[in-house]
Amino acid sequence: MKRIGLTLVAFAVVALAQYGGNGFPYPEGYRLWTHVKSMELKPGHPLYESFGGLHHIYVNQVGLRTYLEGKKAPFPKGTVIVFDLLSVKEEGNALLEGPQKLIGVMVKDPERYRETDGWGYYAFGPDRKPLAIDPKACHDCHRGAANTDYVFSAFRP
Amino acid sequence: MKRIGLTLVAFAVVALAQYGGNGFPYPEGYRLWTHVKSMELKPGHPLYESFGGLHHIYVNQVGLRTYLEGKKAPFPKGTVIVFDLLSVKEEGNALLEGPQKLIGVMVKDPERYRETDGWGYYAFGPDRKPLAIDPKACHDCHRGAANTDYVFSAFRP
Repeated sequence: MKRIGLTLVAFAVVALAQYGGNGFPYPEGYRLWTHVKSMELKPGHPLYESFGGLHHIYVNQVGLRTYLEGKKAPFPKGTVIVFDLLSVKEEGNALLEGPQKLIGVMVKDPERYRETDGWGYYAFGPDRKPLAIDPKACHDCHRGAANTDYVFSAFRP
Repeated sequence: MKRIGLTLVAFAVVALAQYGGNGFPYPEGYRLWTHVKSMELKPGHPLYESFGGLHHIYVNQVGLRTYLEGKKAPFPKGTVIVFDLLSVKEEGNALLEGPQKLIGVMVKDPERYRETDGWGYYAFGPDRKPLAIDPKACHDCHRGAANTDYVFSAFRP
């Protein structure tokens, strides 16, 4: 438990070191955050081109309680939600996790991201380098979940 | 963070209360453990009848480091691994998580489970009640992973 705690602190230090003035750091250690839910988008799905494959949603400690309570209140500042998108491999009637395609990141900071209702949107490639995305386009779609603070996913109990 | 800690303590107390002399308690709170990996078994897979659907593997804090280090050493006593099996729903070219079918549980305790190389095997239905299973049959299959302490899954980085 102590060891894990130290690991998380180490991740945090690395994250701070990588933090750039205008961007957001790669969310190191998100694989140890809480798994919210999963879904696969298949060929033919309207979002297949951007988000086809198997995705898992993870949330950090700051945002976890809001999920556990059913998103009845807005997520607190500091919430980070990761959308981890993997390609899929079919093998002998099994669907396996393939190489990662990208991660999408939502960050809650009401003052910083006023234009997108308090959420910052970022994406990173499998090499952990930032991908160029348009946060306003992300948010346009997320407006569909305006009544749950713009977050589509719900915690699977 | 403190709130989550208290929640986990509450889970632990409930788990102790449910612990029976000959069984193993339902692993309350496993949804907050670390997500190891996922996989879907489809119709036609040899294990479909028992394990068809989408499954997620979770590990408690005790066993996490062994996964993170690539299973180079045996898992420590107290490791609990949960195989969370969900039915799947196909909807508009998306595969969604459906109702839970069962959870399978592996528990490491070398003295207690001598006959199955240190691992206890349990299963619970969606109602959290124990299912009757034959641990020796479980272990017969897991012998296929004898070189990684009888654990098939590997941590997806």
